[in-house]
Amino acid sequence: MISVVILGSGNVAYHLTKAFLNTENVIVKQLYARSVAQIQEFQHTTSITDDISLLATADVYILAISDNAISEVSSHLQNKFVVHTSGSVTMNSLQNSGRKGVFYPLQSFSKSKQVNFNTIPFCLEAETTKDYQLLERLAKTIGSKIFSINSLQRSKLHVAAVFVNNFVNHMYTIGNDICDTYDVPFEVLLPLIEETSAKISAISPKDAQTGPAKRNDTETISKHLEMLNESQKEVYKLITKSIQNGEKL
Amino acid sequence: MISVVILGSGNVAYHLTKAFLNTENVIVKQLYARSVAQIQEFQHTTSITDDISLLATADVYILAISDNAISEVSSHLQNKFVVHTSGSVTMNSLQNSGRKGVFYPLQSFSKSKQVNFNTIPFCLEAETTKDYQLLERLAKTIGSKIFSINSLQRSKLHVAAVFVNNFVNHMYTIGNDICDTYDVPFEVLLPLIEETSAKISAISPKDAQTGPAKRNDTETISKHLEMLNESQKEVYKLITKSIQNGEKL
Repeated sequence: MISVVILGSGNVAYHLTKAFLNTENVIVKQLYARSVAQIQEFQHTTSITDDISLLATADVYILAISDNAISEVSSHLQNKFVVHTSGSVTMNSLQNSGRKGVFYPLQSFSKSKQVNFNTIPFCLEAETTKDYQLLERLAKTIGSKIFSINSLQRSKLHVAAVFVNNFVNHMYTIGNDICDTYDVPFEVLLPLIEETSAKISAISPKDAQTGPAKRNDTETISKHLEMLNESQKEVYKLITKSIQNGEKL
Repeated sequence: MISVVILGSGNVAYHLTKAFLNTENVIVKQLYARSVAQIQEFQHTTSITDDISLLATADVYILAISDNAISEVSSHLQNKFVVHTSGSVTMNSLQNSGRKGVFYPLQSFSKSKQVNFNTIPFCLEAETTKDYQLLERLAKTIGSKIFSINSLQRSKLHVAAVFVNNFVNHMYTIGNDICDTYDVPFEVLLPLIEETSAKISAISPKDAQTGPAKRNDTETISKHLEMLNESQKEVYKLITKSIQNGEKL
């Protein structure tokens, strides 16, 4: 049995709490938030508090709080095993006097959408093998994909995630804008979008690349540029160039 | 019963032929390719030819050939109902003397991967309601998502598809490159990639946008830029700017 205290009231804190409450091998000793109102819904299932000096004793303290609060909040936690859940903060940003670690579920969470941790990679880091193994056991109670990722690797992963998540989503937005402008239902593109993302489980994105940029089909590229507004044009040109540079490597 | 002749030997021709051969309400009268060797595998299931003057009589002639061959090949087909399967060519590029139409399955095909036409949108166009209805009946024999899309709309859809397919895939490539450089397994990102594409079936991409650009988190953006090579940096900056411009609208 592993006991945890979860600090935070955002999406990650919420979904981790839900998941740990539903598993037999973890006991959620307490939840902490700056205001108890934010975690009120758990008041009948576990102890809740907004007083950081009154935290219960637990094996692991999980800081699921905003990146820039991690140092400050961790500095109040003495002689404890403290982990944060952030993709972009180093382990050593933790300012507690005790043991440190990272427990980073790599997924984009929204409160309203149910989360299946079994499909979510856990990127773990700790100072000692023993602590790593504890985090691994903890992650395995709710998940199955566990990766040992150090702080340097995690920072790179976070940039990579910006490309494959935030920037990809922006490409969807531009596609959607073009459809809206010409009264074409965006849903026509959804199966292609699904296929594009599914494909790279089987082949590398480099091998999966198709389209006018890859073929250097200058006639189609010119036709496309004529149809776009200035800002779309700039994006189209640069990514076309970037695809073609990649081809040359 | 609808009879068809399919012209072409590429991925679209191949998968349409397979699908129509497997359905009861369509008869594939003949396949044509510039060289019969390319369509040899169908020699025992239907008639094959490389002589365009010897085409069988059919209700619909489907030109699943490369974009720049559509005008030329169609000019040999007199007094027939000819459709092409291209996303970027107008209906009037067809040079046959008879009726014209478009039968465009919007998906990216590869020969080795099985195709489920039931999930693929068919974008249809014809000169008359009667011909449109024929194409609709034909599409419904193998698919279920049918859209009436005229040539202007289809050309816009094609640009939009470049963004949501080719450009998205390039974002995956950059993500993969970053992972490779720092020895992080790219598979860690696959669930996030799946989630990102699945999300927009439920909410609009604009509403789904997250990340440092959207939050205008300049500190994270600077940290990220430091980690990228010149060409990645250029892409990161421009898409960040484009996301932020979009926010202002």
